[in-house]
Amino acid sequence: MQQESLYVIKIGGNIIDDAQRLDAFLQSYAHLPGKKILIHGGGKLATKLAADLQVPQQMVDGRRITDAETLKIVTMVYAGFINKNIVATLQKQQLNAIGLCGADGNVVFATKRVHPTIDYGFVGDVQQVNDIFLKSLLDQDIAVVLAPITHNGEGLLLNTNADTVAQEIATAMAKHYTVNLVYSFEKAGVLTDVNDDNSVIPVLTRSLYQQYKNEEKIFAGMIPKLDNAFAAIDKGVDKVIIGKAEELEKLTTGQTGTILTHE
Amino acid sequence: MQQESLYVIKIGGNIIDDAQRLDAFLQSYAHLPGKKILIHGGGKLATKLAADLQVPQQMVDGRRITDAETLKIVTMVYAGFINKNIVATLQKQQLNAIGLCGADGNVVFATKRVHPTIDYGFVGDVQQVNDIFLKSLLDQDIAVVLAPITHNGEGLLLNTNADTVAQEIATAMAKHYTVNLVYSFEKAGVLTDVNDDNSVIPVLTRSLYQQYKNEEKIFAGMIPKLDNAFAAIDKGVDKVIIGKAEELEKLTTGQTGTILTHE
Repeated sequence: MQQESLYVIKIGGNIIDDAQRLDAFLQSYAHLPGKKILIHGGGKLATKLAADLQVPQQMVDGRRITDAETLKIVTMVYAGFINKNIVATLQKQQLNAIGLCGADGNVVFATKRVHPTIDYGFVGDVQQVNDIFLKSLLDQDIAVVLAPITHNGEGLLLNTNADTVAQEIATAMAKHYTVNLVYSFEKAGVLTDVNDDNSVIPVLTRSLYQQYKNEEKIFAGMIPKLDNAFAAIDKGVDKVIIGKAEELEKLTTGQTGTILTHE
Repeated sequence: MQQESLYVIKIGGNIIDDAQRLDAFLQSYAHLPGKKILIHGGGKLATKLAADLQVPQQMVDGRRITDAETLKIVTMVYAGFINKNIVATLQKQQLNAIGLCGADGNVVFATKRVHPTIDYGFVGDVQQVNDIFLKSLLDQDIAVVLAPITHNGEGLLLNTNADTVAQEIATAMAKHYTVNLVYSFEKAGVLTDVNDDNSVIPVLTRSLYQQYKNEEKIFAGMIPKLDNAFAAIDKGVDKVIIGKAEELEKLTTGQTGTILTHE
């Protein structure tokens, strides 16, 4: 039986930071037909609020250390300000949307990260997605907007990587839908030259990915995203599409961006 | 036919501000049997954050003027920090809860307040409650936690009085349930002497309310809450109970607090 299709769309921080681009993105998102889940990152608002409140930000290997004050800030900014403004904007576009974090309806259950040498603080690793509840919302034609804050069932909220949340959601929903996972950001796709939007790789198979990695043609910053993406495909996601947020409609119809496939 | 009962419970700001009392309240809330919706106020956290960010707060007649920066702050604090922490705490108590603001699932639609002489800023007056969607959540045994931020369908979030939101929710749900509306706060009930918790009026009818108002025996600060409460009863809410948050179980079983009735 052909399953109904579902778009799981991750929108990157750079788009969130730019009100005009975000508005344009949300307009095309609202008009995308069918079932959909949007996962948003945080952008620079949390960093700015931390600076305004003089909460020092520690980074280790490019990852933010989430101490108690920083957790409070990301909860306010991601699950509060950004999430609710996206929902209000979608309602304006006549799309009935609901904004959730992982604690709501237990949609993303996680455990606090334990690392042998680095204390990442209140950072969560996803353990389980409540696919049944998400499906019940989608069945009511409600679009889900998810902030990357999860919970551990012991009363703790946890800061979680939004790319990973998107992958876990896509994977969990694959038992109910034909899932297209879209990573939309500021670049036109996976590039062989990070500064040239014309160097998009249109189709990336796992073997091609390995080859480009060996040749160091893929920008190192893309590797965690691509590893996440191939993991999703291995776990039942139909397609992963990577490309520019401004070109959402073209991305979803395969006219632009990079498509990752199993073969 | 006997309708199923529903508790709509408003929790006051003073409880929100006290982590220990909030935790105790949420523990008894989680164990309250049956369908339930919790509406929380904001407490002093928003005021504190505004002070930390040096956003001046204007008050007119005891009401906060919600300018754009203040709206951002209350959205972060009410719909983000407080709402999500309450949900995570309830999940810890094995109660599956979902945290929403009025924009989510279009649960509370409002219009921006227009006043002939005072510009209240981004303040909403409730126009419509999505009772069908709230019922669909309750039918899945999910407890709803609602922040008093509404939306106007034009992309604007609006700050809204939490007592009023509770009354509007209770009223709208009365077509599906036998609704008990509970206003829980720091006092033992409606008092004839504001400084004496032993002066609780156990049962308050509308005529008794009028009499106490004439005699100036009811604290002026209680009058908007009581007007709201009687309005709810006029519009089909079965009972309104007012009392101490710490005594939630006793309040809901009628052993303490003030019960407002039609007759």
